[in-house]
Amino acid sequence: MPSARISPPEAALRVVYELAVPAGESPEARARAVAIEQTVELGEDGTDPALPERLAGRVVKIEPAGEAVCRATLEYPAAALGADLAQVVNVLFGNVSMQAGVRIAAVEWPAGLLASLGGPRFGIEGLRRLAGDTSGRPGRPLTATALKPLGATPAELAGRAYRLARGGLDIVKDDHGLADQSPAPFGERVRRCQEAIERANAETGGRCLYFPNLTGPPADLPEKVELLRAIGVRGALVAPLLTGLDAVRSLAASSGLALLAHPALAGAFFRPGHGIAPAVLLGEVFRIAGADGVVFPLPGGRFAIPEADTDALCRDLRGPLGDLLPAFPVAGGGVGVERVAPALDRLGPDTILLVGGGLYRDPDLESAARRLVEAARSWRSRTP
Amino acid sequence: MPSARISPPEAALRVVYELAVPAGESPEARARAVAIEQTVELGEDGTDPALPERLAGRVVKIEPAGEAVCRATLEYPAAALGADLAQVVNVLFGNVSMQAGVRIAAVEWPAGLLASLGGPRFGIEGLRRLAGDTSGRPGRPLTATALKPLGATPAELAGRAYRLARGGLDIVKDDHGLADQSPAPFGERVRRCQEAIERANAETGGRCLYFPNLTGPPADLPEKVELLRAIGVRGALVAPLLTGLDAVRSLAASSGLALLAHPALAGAFFRPGHGIAPAVLLGEVFRIAGADGVVFPLPGGRFAIPEADTDALCRDLRGPLGDLLPAFPVAGGGVGVERVAPALDRLGPDTILLVGGGLYRDPDLESAARRLVEAARSWRSRTP
Repeated sequence: MPSARISPPEAALRVVYELAVPAGESPEARARAVAIEQTVELGEDGTDPALPERLAGRVVKIEPAGEAVCRATLEYPAAALGADLAQVVNVLFGNVSMQAGVRIAAVEWPAGLLASLGGPRFGIEGLRRLAGDTSGRPGRPLTATALKPLGATPAELAGRAYRLARGGLDIVKDDHGLADQSPAPFGERVRRCQEAIERANAETGGRCLYFPNLTGPPADLPEKVELLRAIGVRGALVAPLLTGLDAVRSLAASSGLALLAHPALAGAFFRPGHGIAPAVLLGEVFRIAGADGVVFPLPGGRFAIPEADTDALCRDLRGPLGDLLPAFPVAGGGVGVERVAPALDRLGPDTILLVGGGLYRDPDLESAARRLVEAARSWRSRTP
Repeated sequence: MPSARISPPEAALRVVYELAVPAGESPEARARAVAIEQTVELGEDGTDPALPERLAGRVVKIEPAGEAVCRATLEYPAAALGADLAQVVNVLFGNVSMQAGVRIAAVEWPAGLLASLGGPRFGIEGLRRLAGDTSGRPGRPLTATALKPLGATPAELAGRAYRLARGGLDIVKDDHGLADQSPAPFGERVRRCQEAIERANAETGGRCLYFPNLTGPPADLPEKVELLRAIGVRGALVAPLLTGLDAVRSLAASSGLALLAHPALAGAFFRPGHGIAPAVLLGEVFRIAGADGVVFPLPGGRFAIPEADTDALCRDLRGPLGDLLPAFPVAGGGVGVERVAPALDRLGPDTILLVGGGLYRDPDLESAARRLVEAARSWRSRTP
């Protein structure tokens, strides 16, 4: 380890856990067990006395938090974390995911770690510029939809993309279920959809962006990125929990594409009493992985995330996080045009409204898209 | 889509879900909603009638399963799944992870899909051969430990690796918390540990294997694999949920290394009533990703997985799964030498016993390792 004189120890990572405390165990012992489990994995009796536990986590604070639950703040030394996001998440929740009643409520990220991990390359302002919005912050809410369904041919999808772009949307993204399936192979699908959207833009003078779903083995991603860039695509949809957090981080760092992150699988972490708070996973970890926007379900749609959690994740996406750029909340999840105004009242203008299935109820997709765009445009922030 | 004449439709993927059924909804409607959510994501009213819902999931069977819960068998067409594991898992659980009360209890995998995804390259017999066990099946139980702790220098870790290998273990794997941290950078650590274990083997005539933890951004993995192969390492530890399922699948296909998969983060999926059964995630998905052995916690240790689930995951790791090779259950999780015999009585000989912290309680690591080896060797299967 470098001496403190040459390289002062970096600030530690602080994590607030809500821990179930079994009968007969003290909150202190439970918190200490988590700190050890997530770092050295050896109790005091298992460490050679000559080998200092330099990288063990330590308990900073313990507060009661309801019956048989405590709120414990733990600190992990920077050197335990290494330089990749997978290892950071491993330290946060790897092994304790398999214990009962461990929930990460909050994380304090050291600025040095954040800087080394990267974060968004476009951020809210960069994504606005791609969409042709130079009105400055807070600017206007952006509009997006999902290109569907799985099973359609590239020509059918391109036809829909054309009509959606004609309607004036800012972003048409692939549905996250469109991967590289036989009815619409990746290469043909993205070429035709990008061409369709550029044609619509040429006709309307608009700046609609097509964001294909970028998935598959990480080794194949560079070739896919090359194709996307060659045909003029400026961004993509990624699923960090499916593709891998560091694979997405590499895409953010080197693809030149703006990234919207899809929360596929994330719900496994959102159970009461065990898991990772949505604000930490979607609002912080996904932003650190390089997402310029993060898709999340608005309450009241088909998904079950409490409103307080979605408020918190919006704060975390946009708020200060070291020197990382802020990222857009992308609010979707079974929301129709009629919910645009109340959603924006709550979320504010730095939001991408993602209306998918809601548009498809109208066989005239162009009109449906236009109604969404108009609903977003006619909304005015109540807080000037 | 290819016509049925040229390419007969492949068998579908069948999934058994346990679904919470909200008051006022029918089990049929709930199951149908999941089938749509995970494929076309459009209700009947949202699909252009000219666009057949060719790839929508469909409900095959529904049974009651307790109060307000049903057991629904769904079928997803092969063409919805594409050719990567991330998309398969996305179809299984991507969006519904964010709904309440959705648990995957079982999966029936089409043989064609399994063949295209790959699976283990060594399997139980291949890993036995690496460890010098040519006694044929069922053969003897193998023994393993974890090299710890995070914070030790490469020299300290190599010293421990040497003593553990001298004790006669089959495998010394890195603790899954050893990544590429400053106290023991990856390159120096693996060189020194591999050298130490080879030195011990030369002295004892043993065949102990060193399996370093292979982690970090997927783009960096090829270089790490090259280093490992250059210094004679034959296998590695991977964490599929951290590194990415398809990144691990690529390693299995092309690294030439045997892979032990660590369940970091997996516990998020193991909550009652919501998630993925341990047997499906660890016993099937991890095996399909290419794990030759899968680490899981034995009941009664520090982790909270029910015994019925660990029995089922052992069956799934070893049992028929298309033409995939069987994989070793690697039983760990706070187990000491004293639990070797009862664990083997339950698990049988096709098992790797992973005793980590339990060995380190003895300052004489070589003796501690030898006691584990002897406990495994003196155990005799009760079922001849």
